[in-house]
Amino acid sequence: MKFAKIPMATIVRLSIYMRTLQELLEEDVEVISSERLAKQCGVNPAQIRKDLAYFGEFGVRGVGYRVNDLVNQIKDILGLNRPWNLAMVGLGNLGSALVRHGNFIKHGYVFTAAFDADQSKVGKRLPNGLIINHISELEDVVRERDVHVGIIATPANDAQSVANSLVLAGINGILNFAPVQIQVPDCCHVENVDFTIKLDSIAYHLSFGG
Amino acid sequence: MKFAKIPMATIVRLSIYMRTLQELLEEDVEVISSERLAKQCGVNPAQIRKDLAYFGEFGVRGVGYRVNDLVNQIKDILGLNRPWNLAMVGLGNLGSALVRHGNFIKHGYVFTAAFDADQSKVGKRLPNGLIINHISELEDVVRERDVHVGIIATPANDAQSVANSLVLAGINGILNFAPVQIQVPDCCHVENVDFTIKLDSIAYHLSFGG
Repeated sequence: MKFAKIPMATIVRLSIYMRTLQELLEEDVEVISSERLAKQCGVNPAQIRKDLAYFGEFGVRGVGYRVNDLVNQIKDILGLNRPWNLAMVGLGNLGSALVRHGNFIKHGYVFTAAFDADQSKVGKRLPNGLIINHISELEDVVRERDVHVGIIATPANDAQSVANSLVLAGINGILNFAPVQIQVPDCCHVENVDFTIKLDSIAYHLSFGG
Repeated sequence: MKFAKIPMATIVRLSIYMRTLQELLEEDVEVISSERLAKQCGVNPAQIRKDLAYFGEFGVRGVGYRVNDLVNQIKDILGLNRPWNLAMVGLGNLGSALVRHGNFIKHGYVFTAAFDADQSKVGKRLPNGLIINHISELEDVVRERDVHVGIIATPANDAQSVANSLVLAGINGILNFAPVQIQVPDCCHVENVDFTIKLDSIAYHLSFGG
Protein backbone atom coordinates (compact mmCIF):
# COMPACT_ATOMS: atom_id res chain seq x y z
CA MET A 1 0.00 0.00 0.00
CA LYS A 2 1.56 3.29 -1.08
CA PHE A 3 -0.26 6.58 -1.45
CA ALA A 4 1.34 9.47 -3.29
CA LYS A 5 1.63 12.94 -1.82
CA ILE A 6 -0.19 12.51 1.45
CA PRO A 7 0.42 15.71 3.45
CA MET A 8 2.36 15.08 6.66
CA ALA A 9 -0.32 17.07 8.52
CA THR A 10 -2.89 14.47 7.40
CA ILE A 11 -0.74 11.66 8.81
CA VAL A 12 -0.45 13.48 12.15
CA ARG A 13 -4.22 14.09 12.26
CA LEU A 14 -4.92 10.41 11.50
CA SER A 15 -2.90 9.54 14.64
CA ILE A 16 -4.94 12.02 16.65
CA TYR A 17 -8.23 10.64 15.30
CA MET A 18 -7.06 7.13 16.19
CA ARG A 19 -6.15 8.15 19.76
CA THR A 20 -9.60 9.68 20.22
CA LEU A 21 -11.30 6.64 18.69
CA GLN A 22 -9.35 4.38 21.05
CA GLU A 23 -10.56 6.45 24.00
CA LEU A 24 -14.13 6.04 22.69
CA LEU A 25 -13.62 2.26 22.41
CA GLU A 26 -12.60 2.19 26.08
CA GLU A 27 -15.93 3.90 26.84
CA ASP A 28 -17.72 1.22 24.75
CA VAL A 29 -18.81 3.69 22.07
CA GLU A 30 -19.47 1.64 18.91
CA VAL A 31 -20.51 4.27 16.37
CA ILE A 32 -19.71 7.99 16.15
CA SER A 33 -20.78 10.73 13.75
CA SER A 34 -18.07 12.68 11.95
CA GLU A 35 -19.40 15.82 13.68
CA ARG A 36 -18.88 14.41 17.16
CA LEU A 37 -15.55 12.83 16.31
CA ALA A 38 -14.40 16.16 14.84
CA LYS A 39 -15.43 18.05 17.97
CA GLN A 40 -13.53 15.66 20.22
CA CYS A 41 -10.44 15.94 18.02
CA GLY A 42 -10.62 19.73 17.78
CA VAL A 43 -11.00 19.85 13.98
CA ASN A 44 -13.97 20.40 11.64
CA PRO A 45 -15.89 17.44 10.16
CA ALA A 46 -14.88 18.30 6.59
CA GLN A 47 -11.24 17.94 7.60
CA ILE A 48 -11.77 14.38 8.85
CA ARG A 49 -13.60 13.40 5.66
CA LYS A 50 -10.88 15.00 3.52
CA ASP A 51 -8.07 13.30 5.44
CA LEU A 52 -9.71 9.88 5.17
CA ALA A 53 -10.62 10.40 1.49
CA TYR A 54 -6.95 10.02 0.56
CA PHE A 55 -7.23 6.37 1.53
CA GLY A 56 -10.70 5.30 0.42
CA GLU A 57 -14.26 5.42 1.65
CA PHE A 58 -14.96 5.12 5.35
CA GLY A 59 -18.07 5.39 7.44
CA VAL A 60 -21.71 4.89 6.61
CA ARG A 61 -23.76 7.81 5.29
CA GLY A 62 -26.26 9.03 7.89
CA VAL A 63 -24.77 6.75 10.53
CA GLY A 64 -21.14 7.68 11.01
CA TYR A 65 -18.04 5.66 11.64
CA ARG A 66 -17.87 2.26 13.32
CA VAL A 67 -15.27 3.04 15.96
CA ASN A 68 -13.49 -0.31 16.04
CA ASP A 69 -13.38 -0.60 12.24
CA LEU A 70 -12.00 2.91 11.82
CA VAL A 71 -9.26 2.29 14.43
CA ASN A 72 -8.16 -0.79 12.50
CA GLN A 73 -8.37 0.99 9.15
CA ILE A 74 -6.18 3.87 10.41
CA LYS A 75 -3.73 1.34 11.84
CA ASP A 76 -3.48 -0.22 8.38
CA ILE A 77 -2.97 3.20 6.80
CA LEU A 78 -0.18 4.18 9.19
CA GLY A 79 1.54 0.79 9.33
CA LEU A 80 0.63 0.20 12.96
CA ASN A 81 -0.85 -3.29 12.58
CA ARG A 82 2.46 -4.74 13.88
CA PRO A 83 4.79 -4.05 16.81
CA TRP A 84 7.65 -1.56 16.43
CA ASN A 85 10.88 -2.07 18.38
CA LEU A 86 12.53 0.94 19.99
CA ALA A 87 16.00 1.64 21.36
CA MET A 88 16.43 4.37 23.98
CA VAL A 89 19.78 6.15 23.87
CA GLY A 90 20.50 8.22 26.99
CA LEU A 91 19.12 7.04 30.34
CA GLY A 92 19.20 10.36 32.18
CA ASN A 93 16.09 11.72 33.91
CA LEU A 94 14.12 12.15 30.70
CA GLY A 95 15.19 8.90 29.00
CA SER A 96 14.51 6.93 32.19
CA ALA A 97 11.06 8.50 32.53
CA LEU A 98 10.26 7.71 28.91
CA VAL A 99 11.17 4.01 29.06
CA ARG A 100 8.88 3.73 32.11
CA HIS A 101 6.02 5.55 30.36
CA GLY A 102 3.05 3.26 29.70
CA ASN A 103 1.96 5.12 26.59
CA PHE A 104 4.52 3.50 24.30
CA ILE A 105 3.57 -0.12 24.91
CA LYS A 106 -0.12 0.80 24.81
CA HIS A 107 0.37 1.88 21.20
CA GLY A 108 2.51 -1.05 20.08
CA TYR A 109 5.95 0.49 20.66
CA VAL A 110 8.25 -1.86 22.55
CA PHE A 111 11.65 -0.94 24.00
CA THR A 112 14.02 -3.77 23.09
CA ALA A 113 17.32 -1.97 23.79
CA ALA A 114 18.67 0.85 25.97
CA PHE A 115 22.10 2.52 25.85
CA ASP A 116 24.10 4.98 27.90
CA ALA A 117 27.69 6.25 27.81
CA ASP A 118 27.92 6.23 31.63
CA GLN A 119 29.62 3.00 32.77
CA SER A 120 27.89 3.25 36.17
CA LYS A 121 24.52 2.78 34.42
CA VAL A 122 25.61 -0.09 32.16
CA GLY A 123 24.31 -3.48 33.33
CA LYS A 124 21.48 -1.97 35.39
CA ARG A 125 18.02 -3.43 34.86
CA LEU A 126 15.09 -1.16 33.87
CA PRO A 127 11.56 -1.75 35.23
CA ASN A 128 10.59 -3.46 31.94
CA GLY A 129 13.41 -5.99 32.45
CA LEU A 130 15.72 -4.47 29.88
CA ILE A 131 19.41 -4.21 30.81
CA ILE A 132 21.29 -1.03 29.85
CA ASN A 133 24.10 -1.56 27.33
CA HIS A 134 27.12 0.66 26.79
CA ILE A 135 26.78 3.00 23.84
CA SER A 136 29.79 1.32 22.20
CA GLU A 137 27.64 -1.81 21.78
CA LEU A 138 24.92 0.08 19.91
CA GLU A 139 25.48 -1.24 16.40
CA ASP A 140 25.63 -4.91 17.40
CA VAL A 141 22.72 -4.80 19.83
CA VAL A 142 20.47 -2.80 17.47
CA ARG A 143 20.95 -5.43 14.75
CA GLU A 144 20.54 -8.40 17.12
CA ARG A 145 17.31 -7.10 18.63
CA ASP A 146 15.74 -5.93 15.38
CA VAL A 147 15.37 -2.31 16.52
CA HIS A 148 13.35 -0.19 14.09
CA VAL A 149 13.39 3.25 15.69
CA GLY A 150 16.04 4.97 17.84
CA ILE A 151 15.07 7.51 20.49
CA ILE A 152 17.72 10.07 21.41
CA ALA A 153 17.48 11.50 24.93
CA THR A 154 21.13 12.48 25.37
CA PRO A 155 22.52 15.97 26.02
CA ALA A 156 22.52 18.15 22.90
CA ASN A 157 26.28 17.78 22.38
CA ASP A 158 26.07 14.00 22.02
CA ALA A 159 22.99 13.81 19.80
CA GLN A 160 24.69 14.00 16.39
CA SER A 161 27.21 11.24 17.11
CA VAL A 162 24.41 9.04 18.45
CA ALA A 163 22.41 9.72 15.29
CA ASN A 164 25.43 8.76 13.19
CA SER A 165 25.76 5.45 15.09
CA LEU A 166 22.05 4.69 14.69
CA VAL A 167 22.24 5.30 10.94
CA LEU A 168 25.34 3.10 10.68
CA ALA A 169 23.41 0.38 12.50
CA GLY A 170 20.76 0.52 9.78
CA ILE A 171 18.14 2.58 11.64
CA ASN A 172 15.94 4.72 9.36
CA GLY A 173 13.69 6.34 11.96
CA ILE A 174 14.76 8.57 14.85
CA LEU A 175 12.74 10.37 17.52
CA ASN A 176 14.99 13.13 18.84
CA PHE A 177 14.41 14.68 22.28
CA ALA A 178 17.80 16.44 22.37
CA PRO A 179 17.37 20.20 21.84
CA VAL A 180 19.43 20.33 18.65
CA GLN A 181 18.83 19.74 14.93
CA ILE A 182 20.50 16.49 13.85
CA GLN A 183 21.62 15.83 10.28
CA VAL A 184 20.92 12.42 8.74
CA PRO A 185 20.91 10.92 5.21
CA ASP A 186 17.68 11.19 3.21
CA CYS A 187 16.87 7.54 3.86
CA CYS A 188 16.39 8.32 7.55
CA HIS A 189 13.29 10.06 8.90
CA VAL A 190 13.72 12.22 12.02
CA GLU A 191 10.95 13.63 14.21
CA ASN A 192 11.94 16.15 16.87
CA VAL A 193 10.23 16.65 20.22
CA ASP A 194 11.05 20.05 21.74
CA PHE A 195 8.64 20.98 24.52
CA THR A 196 9.78 24.58 24.53
CA ILE A 197 8.63 25.08 20.94
CA LYS A 198 5.11 24.22 22.13
CA LEU A 199 5.58 26.70 24.98
CA ASP A 200 6.59 29.37 22.46
CA SER A 201 3.26 28.84 20.68
CA ILE A 202 1.44 29.21 23.99
CA ALA A 203 3.44 32.36 24.81
CA TYR A 204 2.48 33.81 21.42
CA HIS A 205 -1.20 33.09 22.02
CA LEU A 206 -1.11 34.58 25.52
CA SER A 207 0.74 37.66 24.27
CA PHE A 208 -1.22 38.42 21.14
CA GLY A 209 -4.32 36.24 21.32
CA GLY A 210 -3.32 34.76 17.94
CA MET B 1 1.55 44.25 18.40
CA LYS B 2 -1.13 42.06 16.85
CA PHE B 3 -0.96 40.39 13.46
CA ALA B 4 -4.08 38.99 11.87
CA LYS B 5 -4.29 35.45 10.53
CA ILE B 6 -0.75 34.26 11.08
CA PRO B 7 -0.80 30.50 10.37
CA MET B 8 0.06 28.43 13.42
CA ALA B 9 2.65 26.57 11.30
CA THR B 10 4.46 29.87 10.79
CA ILE B 11 4.61 30.46 14.55
CA VAL B 12 6.05 26.98 15.07
CA ARG B 13 8.64 27.51 12.34
CA LEU B 14 9.67 30.87 13.84
CA SER B 15 10.49 28.99 17.07
CA ILE B 16 12.55 26.50 15.10
CA TYR B 17 14.42 29.26 13.25
CA MET B 18 15.11 30.96 16.60
CA ARG B 19 16.50 27.74 18.13
CA THR B 20 18.84 27.29 15.17
CA LEU B 21 19.90 30.95 15.29
CA GLN B 22 20.63 30.58 19.01
CA GLU B 23 22.84 27.56 18.26
CA LEU B 24 24.66 29.69 15.65
CA LEU B 25 25.15 32.47 18.20
CA GLU B 26 26.81 29.97 20.53
CA GLU B 27 29.20 29.18 17.66
CA ASP B 28 29.88 32.95 17.26
CA VAL B 29 28.25 33.11 13.82
CA GLU B 30 27.24 36.76 13.28
CA VAL B 31 25.62 36.70 9.85
CA ILE B 32 23.88 33.90 7.94
CA SER B 33 22.36 33.67 4.48
CA SER B 34 18.73 32.62 4.18
CA GLU B 35 19.95 29.62 2.15
CA ARG B 36 22.19 28.35 4.91
CA LEU B 37 19.69 29.10 7.65
CA ALA B 38 17.02 27.26 5.64
CA LYS B 39 19.25 24.21 5.20
CA GLN B 40 20.00 24.02 8.92
CA CYS B 41 16.29 24.32 9.75
CA GLY B 42 15.22 21.75 7.16
CA VAL B 43 13.01 24.13 5.14
CA ASN B 44 13.48 26.01 1.86
CA PRO B 45 14.72 29.64 1.82
CA ALA B 46 11.45 30.95 0.33
CA GLN B 47 9.61 29.56 3.35
CA ILE B 48 11.76 31.54 5.79
CA ARG B 49 11.30 34.74 3.82
CA LYS B 50 7.54 34.14 3.60
CA ASP B 51 7.22 33.40 7.32
CA LEU B 52 9.15 36.54 8.27
CA ALA B 53 7.30 38.70 5.73
CA TYR B 54 4.16 38.54 7.91
CA PHE B 55 5.99 40.68 10.43
CA GLY B 56 8.05 43.12 8.36
CA GLU B 57 11.37 43.24 6.55
CA PHE B 58 14.32 41.39 7.95
CA GLY B 59 17.83 40.75 6.72
CA VAL B 60 20.03 42.66 4.33
CA ARG B 61 19.85 41.90 0.61
CA GLY B 62 22.96 40.10 -0.60
CA VAL B 63 24.22 39.71 2.96
CA GLY B 64 21.70 37.71 4.93
CA TYR B 65 20.44 37.93 8.46
CA ARG B 66 22.34 39.32 11.42
CA VAL B 67 21.96 36.39 13.79
CA ASN B 68 21.66 38.29 17.06
CA ASP B 69 19.21 40.83 15.63
CA LEU B 70 16.99 38.15 14.14
CA VAL B 71 16.89 36.21 17.43
CA ASN B 72 15.70 39.34 19.20
CA GLN B 73 13.20 40.18 16.49
CA ILE B 74 11.67 36.70 16.63
CA LYS B 75 11.53 36.95 20.42
CA ASP B 76 9.55 40.19 20.02
CA ILE B 77 7.23 38.54 17.50
CA LEU B 78 6.51 35.55 19.75
CA GLY B 79 6.30 37.46 23.03
CA LEU B 80 9.46 35.87 24.42
CA ASN B 81 11.25 39.07 25.48
CA ARG B 82 10.12 38.40 29.06
CA PRO B 83 10.14 35.42 31.45
CA TRP B 84 7.16 33.05 31.56
CA ASN B 85 6.25 31.32 34.81
CA LEU B 86 5.27 27.66 34.72
CA ALA B 87 3.48 25.32 37.11
CA MET B 88 4.11 21.58 36.86
CA VAL B 89 1.15 19.42 37.85
CA GLY B 90 2.07 15.78 38.43
CA LEU B 91 5.53 14.92 39.76
CA GLY B 92 5.74 11.32 38.58
CA ASN B 93 8.70 10.10 36.51
CA LEU B 94 7.93 12.33 33.54
CA GLY B 95 6.98 15.49 35.49
CA SER B 96 10.05 15.13 37.70
CA ALA B 97 12.31 14.72 34.67
CA LEU B 98 10.76 17.78 33.02
CA VAL B 99 11.24 20.16 35.97
CA ARG B 100 14.90 19.08 36.05
CA HIS B 101 15.33 19.63 32.29
CA GLY B 102 17.65 22.54 31.52
CA ASN B 103 15.93 23.42 28.27
CA PHE B 104 13.07 25.32 29.91
CA ILE B 105 15.13 27.86 31.84
CA LYS B 106 17.44 28.27 28.85
CA HIS B 107 14.49 29.59 26.86
CA GLY B 108 13.05 31.83 29.57
CA TYR B 109 10.54 29.39 31.08
CA VAL B 110 10.75 29.30 34.87
CA PHE B 111 9.00 26.77 37.10
CA THR B 112 7.50 28.75 39.99
CA ALA B 113 5.10 26.07 41.28
CA ALA B 114 4.76 22.29 41.39
CA PHE B 115 1.78 20.19 42.48
CA ASP B 116 0.99 16.57 43.16
CA ALA B 117 -1.98 14.69 44.63
CA ASP B 118 0.31 12.27 46.49
CA GLN B 119 0.74 13.47 50.10
CA SER B 120 4.08 11.63 50.35
CA LYS B 121 5.50 14.01 47.70
CA VAL B 122 4.06 17.20 49.19
CA GLY B 123 6.68 19.31 50.99
CA LYS B 124 9.60 17.72 49.14
CA ARG B 125 12.13 20.09 47.59
CA LEU B 126 12.95 19.84 43.87
CA PRO B 127 16.53 20.41 42.57
CA ASN B 128 15.58 23.97 41.53
CA GLY B 129 14.59 24.72 45.15
CA LEU B 130 10.85 24.57 44.54
CA ILE B 131 8.74 22.78 47.16
CA ILE B 132 5.91 20.53 45.96
CA ASN B 133 2.43 21.71 46.98
CA HIS B 134 -0.68 19.58 47.29
CA ILE B 135 -2.99 19.79 44.30
CA SER B 136 -5.73 21.21 46.56
CA GLU B 137 -3.61 24.37 46.94
CA LEU B 138 -3.38 24.89 43.18
CA GLU B 139 -5.70 27.89 42.80
CA ASP B 140 -4.12 29.91 45.63
CA VAL B 141 -0.51 29.12 44.76
CA VAL B 142 -0.98 29.76 41.03
CA ARG B 143 -2.34 33.24 41.76
CA GLU B 144 0.30 34.07 44.39
CA ARG B 145 3.21 33.06 42.17
CA ASP B 146 1.91 34.66 38.99
CA VAL B 147 1.91 31.41 37.03
CA HIS B 148 1.21 31.92 33.31
CA VAL B 149 1.25 28.40 31.91
CA GLY B 150 0.27 25.08 33.48
CA ILE B 151 1.96 21.84 32.47
CA ILE B 152 -0.04 18.66 32.99
CA ALA B 153 2.00 15.48 33.50
CA THR B 154 -0.59 13.48 35.44
CA PRO B 155 -2.13 10.14 34.45
CA ALA B 156 -4.74 10.50 31.69
CA ASN B 157 -7.64 10.04 34.11
CA ASP B 158 -6.69 13.09 36.17
CA ALA B 159 -5.86 15.47 33.33
CA GLN B 160 -9.33 16.96 32.78
CA SER B 161 -9.91 17.84 36.43
CA VAL B 162 -6.43 19.40 36.62
CA ALA B 163 -7.22 21.42 33.49
CA ASN B 164 -10.47 22.59 35.11
CA SER B 165 -8.57 23.74 38.21
CA LEU B 166 -5.96 25.57 36.13
CA VAL B 167 -8.68 27.41 34.19
CA LEU B 168 -10.46 28.32 37.45
CA ALA B 169 -7.15 29.71 38.71
CA GLY B 170 -7.06 32.04 35.71
CA ILE B 171 -4.56 30.10 33.58
CA ASN B 172 -5.04 30.55 29.82
CA GLY B 173 -2.21 28.39 28.53
CA ILE B 174 -1.74 24.65 29.10
CA LEU B 175 0.93 22.24 27.86
CA ASN B 176 -0.58 18.77 28.18
CA PHE B 177 1.60 15.66 28.39
CA ALA B 178 -1.25 13.39 29.51
CA PRO B 179 -2.30 11.08 26.67
CA VAL B 180 -5.86 12.39 26.48
CA GLN B 181 -7.67 15.29 24.80
CA ILE B 182 -8.66 17.88 27.41
CA GLN B 183 -11.57 20.28 26.95
CA VAL B 184 -11.13 23.93 27.94
CA PRO B 185 -12.97 27.22 27.28
CA ASP B 186 -12.02 29.18 24.14
CA CYS B 187 -10.02 31.67 26.20
CA CYS B 188 -7.52 28.93 27.05
CA HIS B 189 -4.93 27.68 24.58
CA VAL B 190 -3.83 24.03 24.89
CA GLU B 191 -0.82 22.41 23.22
CA ASN B 192 -0.50 18.63 23.46
CA VAL B 193 2.73 16.65 23.56
CA ASP B 194 2.19 13.01 22.65
CA PHE B 195 5.43 11.25 21.76
CA THR B 196 3.63 8.29 20.25
CA ILE B 197 2.00 10.50 17.59
CA LYS B 198 5.52 11.36 16.40
CA LEU B 199 6.32 7.63 16.42
CA ASP B 200 3.23 6.97 14.30
CA SER B 201 4.62 9.39 11.69
CA ILE B 202 7.94 7.55 11.76
CA ALA B 203 6.17 4.19 11.45
CA TYR B 204 4.26 5.50 8.43
CA HIS B 205 7.48 6.66 6.77
CA LEU B 206 9.25 3.38 7.48
CA SER B 207 6.27 1.38 6.20
CA PHE B 208 5.45 3.33 3.05
CA GLY B 209 8.41 5.64 2.49
CA GLY B 210 5.96 8.57 2.52
